[in-house]
Amino acid sequence: MKILKFALAGLGRIGKIHLDNLLQMNSIKVVAAMDPVEESRKYAEEKGVLNVTSTYEEMLSSTDIDVVVVCSPTDTHADYVEIAAKMGKHIFCEKPLDLSLQRIVEVLDVVEGSGVKLMIGFNRRFDKEFKKVKALVTEGAIGDHHLVKITSRDPGAPPLSYIEKSGGLFLDMTIHDFDIARFIVSKEIDEVYARGAVLVNPAIGDVGDIDTAVITLTYTDGTMAIIDNSREAAYGYDQRVEVFGSKGMVKAENNLHDSHQLFTSQGSQGSLPLHFFLERYAEAYKTEMSDYIKSLKNGTEVPASGNDGLQSLKIGLAAIKSLKENRPVKLSEINQFQKIQMLK
Amino acid sequence: MKILKFALAGLGRIGKIHLDNLLQMNSIKVVAAMDPVEESRKYAEEKGVLNVTSTYEEMLSSTDIDVVVVCSPTDTHADYVEIAAKMGKHIFCEKPLDLSLQRIVEVLDVVEGSGVKLMIGFNRRFDKEFKKVKALVTEGAIGDHHLVKITSRDPGAPPLSYIEKSGGLFLDMTIHDFDIARFIVSKEIDEVYARGAVLVNPAIGDVGDIDTAVITLTYTDGTMAIIDNSREAAYGYDQRVEVFGSKGMVKAENNLHDSHQLFTSQGSQGSLPLHFFLERYAEAYKTEMSDYIKSLKNGTEVPASGNDGLQSLKIGLAAIKSLKENRPVKLSEINQFQKIQMLK
Amino acid sequence: MKILKFALAGLGRIGKIHLDNLLQMNSIKVVAAMDPVEESRKYAEEKGVLNVTSTYEEMLSSTDIDVVVVCSPTDTHADYVEIAAKMGKHIFCEKPLDLSLQRIVEVLDVVEGSGVKLMIGFNRRFDKEFKKVKALVTEGAIGDHHLVKITSRDPGAPPLSYIEKSGGLFLDMTIHDFDIARFIVSKEIDEVYARGAVLVNPAIGDVGDIDTAVITLTYTDGTMAIIDNSREAAYGYDQRVEVFGSKGMVKAENNLHDSHQLFTSQGSQGSLPLHFFLERYAEAYKTEMSDYIKSLKNGTEVPASGNDGLQSLKIGLAAIKSLKENRPVKLSEINQFQKIQMLK
Amino acid sequence: MKILKFALAGLGRIGKIHLDNLLQMNSIKVVAAMDPVEESRKYAEEKGVLNVTSTYEEMLSSTDIDVVVVCSPTDTHADYVEIAAKMGKHIFCEKPLDLSLQRIVEVLDVVEGSGVKLMIGFNRRFDKEFKKVKALVTEGAIGDHHLVKITSRDPGAPPLSYIEKSGGLFLDMTIHDFDIARFIVSKEIDEVYARGAVLVNPAIGDVGDIDTAVITLTYTDGTMAIIDNSREAAYGYDQRVEVFGSKGMVKAENNLHDSHQLFTSQGSQGSLPLHFFLERYAEAYKTEMSDYIKSLKNGTEVPASGNDGLQSLKIGLAAIKSLKENRPVKLSEINQFQKIQMLK
Repeated sequence: MKILKFALAGLGRIGKIHLDNLLQMNSIKVVAAMDPVEESRKYAEEKGVLNVTSTYEEMLSSTDIDVVVVCSPTDTHADYVEIAAKMGKHIFCEKPLDLSLQRIVEVLDVVEGSGVKLMIGFNRRFDKEFKKVKALVTEGAIGDHHLVKITSRDPGAPPLSYIEKSGGLFLDMTIHDFDIARFIVSKEIDEVYARGAVLVNPAIGDVGDIDTAVITLTYTDGTMAIIDNSREAAYGYDQRVEVFGSKGMVKAENNLHDSHQLFTSQGSQGSLPLHFFLERYAEAYKTEMSDYIKSLKNGTEVPASGNDGLQSLKIGLAAIKSLKENRPVKLSEINQFQKIQMLK
Repeated sequence: MKILKFALAGLGRIGKIHLDNLLQMNSIKVVAAMDPVEESRKYAEEKGVLNVTSTYEEMLSSTDIDVVVVCSPTDTHADYVEIAAKMGKHIFCEKPLDLSLQRIVEVLDVVEGSGVKLMIGFNRRFDKEFKKVKALVTEGAIGDHHLVKITSRDPGAPPLSYIEKSGGLFLDMTIHDFDIARFIVSKEIDEVYARGAVLVNPAIGDVGDIDTAVITLTYTDGTMAIIDNSREAAYGYDQRVEVFGSKGMVKAENNLHDSHQLFTSQGSQGSLPLHFFLERYAEAYKTEMSDYIKSLKNGTEVPASGNDGLQSLKIGLAAIKSLKENRPVKLSEINQFQKIQMLK
Repeated sequence: MKILKFALAGLGRIGKIHLDNLLQMNSIKVVAAMDPVEESRKYAEEKGVLNVTSTYEEMLSSTDIDVVVVCSPTDTHADYVEIAAKMGKHIFCEKPLDLSLQRIVEVLDVVEGSGVKLMIGFNRRFDKEFKKVKALVTEGAIGDHHLVKITSRDPGAPPLSYIEKSGGLFLDMTIHDFDIARFIVSKEIDEVYARGAVLVNPAIGDVGDIDTAVITLTYTDGTMAIIDNSREAAYGYDQRVEVFGSKGMVKAENNLHDSHQLFTSQGSQGSLPLHFFLERYAEAYKTEMSDYIKSLKNGTEVPASGNDGLQSLKIGLAAIKSLKENRPVKLSEINQFQKIQMLK
Repeated sequence: MKILKFALAGLGRIGKIHLDNLLQMNSIKVVAAMDPVEESRKYAEEKGVLNVTSTYEEMLSSTDIDVVVVCSPTDTHADYVEIAAKMGKHIFCEKPLDLSLQRIVEVLDVVEGSGVKLMIGFNRRFDKEFKKVKALVTEGAIGDHHLVKITSRDPGAPPLSYIEKSGGLFLDMTIHDFDIARFIVSKEIDEVYARGAVLVNPAIGDVGDIDTAVITLTYTDGTMAIIDNSREAAYGYDQRVEVFGSKGMVKAENNLHDSHQLFTSQGSQGSLPLHFFLERYAEAYKTEMSDYIKSLKNGTEVPASGNDGLQSLKIGLAAIKSLKENRPVKLSEINQFQKIQMLK
């Protein structure tokens, strides 16, 4: 079987994870990588990557490449994907593709025209917990689904400088939950009602964002989902999901450091959830990449498409509008010329 | 110490539970009971109650009474409470006091003027799980509270004939959750957004009610609560609560039939939640009554007041309005002349 | 249906529990009670028992009695049972019937000759957890059984004065576990190997007992059970069971005060097991008595017979012998003239 | 810092795991490997190992080597370790070092004389669950320890041909539990009592082994441990530990495939334990090797020494003797000329 030749654009935290995972996979080879930062380039070189460059263009011309993995800053995603697609290379791109609906639509048009396979890095879809819940829902274990509940809380807020450019809580953090809401029951969203507050850190409010939120989603069939978010859970990364239906309910709990239980006269004690996404989703990042490789090899659909990225962004934009206007907002109200702006 | 003399008005399902519990308590005596149904009267007589009558008036005049426990049908509550209050008797009344805000205000005025102690039967406040969560929240274990999550699902819908007269899901079922939302964090509600659907049984929709709902509550300090309801959980009575705050999170799970776990090649299996409120809240009904007796003996505040009943009804009315108009509704929009009507 | 008339001999801690439970049961009546202590007699009188006496003989002659419940001190059990049996009265007797095998055999002969129904108070057989495990084992859920594991630890040691007369750990405490080992898989024991130590309190060793033990039981079919005991578990009453077989494993956990879980930056915390047998087995005491009443009404076998008491004592005597001689001891080595003596 | 040069002797199932893990580690390099089987050699070559040979001698002379990892069949361990030690190379050797006490003592003498660092592959010591329990025990969380309970059950028996040469259940399987019993509380064993049976497969009995066992260990301070084993747990690899002490109890549970819970009218369902040691101890194998490398770099003691291997073997031999003679056996009865023989 053909050995697929991979190139990585961007060797930051996530880029390094993808590189390490790719180096352990069979029937592919990492042939090139790029990063403007020397330390990052050195990391790839020490791992044995032969063509390591400081610009995207150099990388693309350095050797023969089948697949580009885009892990560079968000504002480069759209351009990098467009360039690679035009050159006929498959693309794995970290989310989001862009913060502009209009630009996403343009890029997806190019991708579609080129016939390459674009996958968006919605890593949670590959987590064993979420996959198991989806599998049980899909096989009918809970009958018709009525309610989805997603708890998603980070252990701590990112720097304010990051928040300012991120598009805010709904586009930076909740967007993963919007994707899971669609993924877990394979349904589309019709309407969004978002409630939010600044409870963790007033400085987050000062840059125009919220840090705590509750979002009600209504699917096109009238069933509902609820999401709750916080930027700061003192006990670690809280990632739970529950689906309730006519025949039952299925839920998945957090992954803990270990299963120990200590009983003393003071009470019982146990471990906390894994600290953050790097720990919780370590396996999911591997599965994500190997599933993408499988879809390339087998010519099957990618498990997280450009359209999935588009839909999640639309829900996020509707959530922003809902929060500002304190009213439920239909997805049909969001059109491609909708501008991103901070929440207040 | 004085032996308090109790009389029970209404010996239906809940009335019998209260009677049995009262018969086991010290320093009180059940001296009278009434019910229009002969079988119910016989039940009380066999338990040794001396004055058992078929009307409320006969009961009140049959002997010396300190406390009246009102467990008769909802449409008698207001009148019975008013009469007892005017006679200077303390009253324990099952919720709701009435479905009309105006009538409740009238009755509470009479109660206040009479100086008797009125307690409303919000049994969940006395459940060991909810009490434990409230205790931890109150002592600061989770810091400032940010989010409350209440899951409340019945094992099956009541008869349609009952639903038609009940005021609908929000006044009949969610009203307990509204009370817990206030109780668990000792805060008042400012705004309600309710989303609902008919997913369990179309006939419920035909009588103008919903059977599945998601409600977002905003407290006066801007923090939030979410409630999800279903009239039919295939796996039993689902009653969970979670409170998230600046220093952590505390939650309480369902009470199961037993703790067994069976592991076979097919997977692991365990028990279901207790079937319904009679099983889940059996202990809570006892504690409720003994706590009421304590407040009578000690002259302290009752743990669930007439105002608690009033506030929950207001939230329920706001939820109905929100559902109809698909917009968030402020509690201040609900005034005492608000009419109850079914959801659609 | 005939109303069974009950009399209680002994109104100590357990006697009061049985009295309170009997007073709530239908189709029986508590007609008499006895206790040498005035406070205990007063307790029964206040509960409405009409014939309350200070001696067993007075009680038996005070009124018409169908069933005697024996909760008096252990050294009176054999005589009280024998007397009641000769008078044709059914008997519920707290364990142990006696500490002498020979005396037990004599009494059981009298009981058998009289045709009355004798039940021994092995309360754990009626605990919902143990019942559920036995039910699953019996219906074949785990296939052929290979191993039984019983954890049984008290929250604190009884007074030394009690330990001295109790026959020691194996006869006072482990005897319940020996019964569960037979009950849970419906098999008889062939051999015992016991290992023990004084680890909790040296004074317990001074009076000739141990406070910590591990016992291996071999059933007549070659399968095995292991029991571990401690007189002092800092975290409360630890009562767990597990059965492993050819098709799987089933276990039951402790009953906790409540199900709350608190997560903070320090870890997760939960509740402890219920404190001791009065709390853990409160429901089991009720079921025990109502099941006994059912067997009397229906003429079916009692769920814990005199022979069950005899067998558990034999295993206990074998355990004592094993500990002293540090070798496995066959039950066939224990004959009815075996004398009880403390462990060392 | 010096790059340590590793060579692997034996590229079977475990050898491949060690190779893959070593390839991901920093500051070491795998410079050579050997295996008589071509497919295994090819595996190493494809992973980039430069010197891959078919004999141990060729491997040792092929290049400069600092550390030898011995994963070849058990009957080669002693010789390979001895040769490497004499050449001044550090050694990581899979357990057991040998099945003859005498031979082990000889080899350990050579190792000691040579000054190299020998580590035995007791992988469970590096499992996060066992490590956490040991850490809590060590820091005094449960006070003085009284009881250790180890459950260790395989999902299925190995081939009879393997069992015949393995030394039997106690030397092949329980030996890991003997090591954990010493490790978890840092104490030595004084006496062993073993009970066993053939309950899974009569053919196992025909080759002179048992498949189910219960072992009581007494530590030199009089405290106790119990181990239960089965060759076949229908529900997967069952690896649990519990330590009970004067101030409390700590336990660790199995690692499950995922945390999902499904509730339907039929009951609740969850996932099974991970299938076998490759899954359960995948992380432990990595930690084991990186901890060994740390001890080499820092000149600290290895976390599982030759003496640890020796002690576990002694306990195993005592267990065999105990089972045959059905009596407790002191470790002091086992001397270095003790011959290994099957259990019956």
